[in-house]
Amino acid sequence: MGKVKKLNKKIKKLKKKLKQGHNHASVSPLAPKGGFPDLPVIDGVEFAAIEAGVRYSGRTDVMLARLCPGTTIAGVFTKSATRSAPVLDCQAKIGGDPAAGAAIVVNSGNANAFTGQNGLKAVNNITAAVAKVLDMPQTRVFSASTGVIGEPLPFDRITTKLADLKTGLSPDRIHDAAAAIMTTDTFAKGASAVVHTDDGDIQIAGIAKGSGMIAPDMATMLVYIFTDAKIDQPLLQEMLSALTGKTFNCITVDSDTSTSDSLLLAATGQSSAREVTDMNGPFFDALHDVMRELSHLVVKDGEGATKFVEVRITGADSNTDAHRVGMSIANSPLVKTAIAGEDPNWGRVVMAVGKSGAQADRDRLSISFGDVLVAENGWVSPNYSEADAAKHMKCDELLISVDLGIGTGKATVWTCDLTHGYIEINADYRS
Amino acid sequence: MGKVKKLNKKIKKLKKKLKQGHNHASVSPLAPKGGFPDLPVIDGVEFAAIEAGVRYSGRTDVMLARLCPGTTIAGVFTKSATRSAPVLDCQAKIGGDPAAGAAIVVNSGNANAFTGQNGLKAVNNITAAVAKVLDMPQTRVFSASTGVIGEPLPFDRITTKLADLKTGLSPDRIHDAAAAIMTTDTFAKGASAVVHTDDGDIQIAGIAKGSGMIAPDMATMLVYIFTDAKIDQPLLQEMLSALTGKTFNCITVDSDTSTSDSLLLAATGQSSAREVTDMNGPFFDALHDVMRELSHLVVKDGEGATKFVEVRITGADSNTDAHRVGMSIANSPLVKTAIAGEDPNWGRVVMAVGKSGAQADRDRLSISFGDVLVAENGWVSPNYSEADAAKHMKCDELLISVDLGIGTGKATVWTCDLTHGYIEINADYRS
Repeated sequence: MGKVKKLNKKIKKLKKKLKQGHNHASVSPLAPKGGFPDLPVIDGVEFAAIEAGVRYSGRTDVMLARLCPGTTIAGVFTKSATRSAPVLDCQAKIGGDPAAGAAIVVNSGNANAFTGQNGLKAVNNITAAVAKVLDMPQTRVFSASTGVIGEPLPFDRITTKLADLKTGLSPDRIHDAAAAIMTTDTFAKGASAVVHTDDGDIQIAGIAKGSGMIAPDMATMLVYIFTDAKIDQPLLQEMLSALTGKTFNCITVDSDTSTSDSLLLAATGQSSAREVTDMNGPFFDALHDVMRELSHLVVKDGEGATKFVEVRITGADSNTDAHRVGMSIANSPLVKTAIAGEDPNWGRVVMAVGKSGAQADRDRLSISFGDVLVAENGWVSPNYSEADAAKHMKCDELLISVDLGIGTGKATVWTCDLTHGYIEINADYRS
Repeated sequence: MGKVKKLNKKIKKLKKKLKQGHNHASVSPLAPKGGFPDLPVIDGVEFAAIEAGVRYSGRTDVMLARLCPGTTIAGVFTKSATRSAPVLDCQAKIGGDPAAGAAIVVNSGNANAFTGQNGLKAVNNITAAVAKVLDMPQTRVFSASTGVIGEPLPFDRITTKLADLKTGLSPDRIHDAAAAIMTTDTFAKGASAVVHTDDGDIQIAGIAKGSGMIAPDMATMLVYIFTDAKIDQPLLQEMLSALTGKTFNCITVDSDTSTSDSLLLAATGQSSAREVTDMNGPFFDALHDVMRELSHLVVKDGEGATKFVEVRITGADSNTDAHRVGMSIANSPLVKTAIAGEDPNWGRVVMAVGKSGAQADRDRLSISFGDVLVAENGWVSPNYSEADAAKHMKCDELLISVDLGIGTGKATVWTCDLTHGYIEINADYRS
């Protein structure tokens, strides 16, 4: 009866599979094939990561970065009315005197958000302890927390590890830092760029975490970007704010905005290159590249994502209108499920344009999937081939272009599809 | 080898089940237990339904209602910028002379939306043909279409059936009409109310369809309400608009707004009761009951829904702010998946309050699930029992209450959970 035994085993296996439901991949199918990139060492920055057992076990969950004296820091943060204690604390500290250097301490597993007076107490304890260990003013210690909302942060688990973290500080541990801040992320995210000048190179390297609750509003999840450029804080802040509008504020996974979104940009001034004084120049462009790449990586690790989608809007009445239409398409559950099903369902794109609140004229609209012109003049294009459109929908990276035919406003935003994986991750356990 | 055969059969069955994925129920688990309600006959209204094969086969897909001379008609419609041809046509006809009566013709299977000049042509052909068959001016024929967007409506399939539809007209066929306008709906929706007066009763009966693409903006899916009240058109319109703000504009299934939302309210004046002349009176209240019930039925048939959720906001700076917070919670994919998972994840409610854009103060917020006070004063309530909250989450009908602790603004909105069923319905085939 070996056959019966075998069949019974098969049944057991199938039943287990059924019980598990749709399994989401352990690593996003959209993750960069080469793994975490080789990031340059940024002169003036050291990193460390450690396992503190804040919530997770068997993995690192706290990162520390030490920045040398003279480092200027710019930041953008969530506009949520229920922002977390560390966000409020960081916002107050941006723009301070760079003479003494700075530090960034981040834990994953617990967001320290909606934790009442305990939240501020935890931030104070952590930043005071870091200041003491690294011998710098508490006003130069920036902190962030990411993970479950509404549970008290066991800050002592972090403070007791600070001496070990200090010992571990090293210029080449940025990958460890990127891994320690992950929550539902399936891969660590990093990006870099270099600016060549006559006096030497300027390096930029950044890391990010984020996978769900992604619809940044003035900032995103947690992002840390480092550069050895010499640059004054006001100009650094101006660049960061301008570029956030074109990168992190143009991505969405699920239209939900975090209580903890924080993006810090630190410039150590250690490069031999001359001080950056122009708003628009090669440094601005390189920073743009790094920020765009990091924001795309967050979408590519969107919870349950199997497709990365660029939504390109042109011909709008204004750039604001274009952004509104783009986000309406990028956030529409019906558009996102059609993409998951590889269905070139342009009717749902029309619907999303219509509900956006932006100025639109049904009969001037044209829509393309990839290179395939789907609709024009308020109806399906005479040359439209559903087979061609369906072929494009099978790609991992999709392009949806909409021309409103009204003005010159334009915007590009990025999103992912909505799959069973998203439901599983968010319905089946508390993240 | 009977055992092997049996086991092989079992394997085949399990494999089939796996392939099908999560099956959504053929009828929503939230459907009224008693089936379609007994609706009163409305004096002055007749209904018919027929199988015209517009897109579906083996079911009725066109309904016709004839309204007696003197019937006043009020309407509210989608605010979508890409609204369908029949919506544009209806909007132009509201407020016309009631002397000749009126007709309403509706098809399912094809929305006649984003169909360019063909869309208007189809509407003209259908309404002209109905006018001819029923001997009334074309300006009194209201039409609607619901189903797939962007495909030309084969209007001749409808016009060739009009003579048969006329023959079938009968005062007691409102249930047939409700069934003919269904698309992804899993049950036909009806509701009624009666107003007793010294001079006789006023009857109100209404039907609705809607299941996905539900985030009405000034109207909802397709809703038809009939009454034998005597009432002038301007007052009827005023009542309808006021009540839409409290009913259909307070529901959401997936935050997506249809191109075709239409709500018509017809008053035949055949009741022996005196003319309705008061805005606020028993007729207004009865109409409110019918509209609220129909709007709830749409949510209860939300695509993939397994939970009906009332979100009650109090203590807001204004009613507008309260509505904004309510909709932010009701549309949040993270809140909706937590509900599907029966997880009292109030941290996600905090997040949704924060992102709403309404005035909010983290430390004045209080949140309850059912009778269980979960959070107050910016943190978890000292008496909170997760077990009690989890028990409430197991109910079919849930209540989430949020007090913002700022002012006196309030609003109540209704939603459903976000499940694998929604993904399946919308990712796996074109609806």
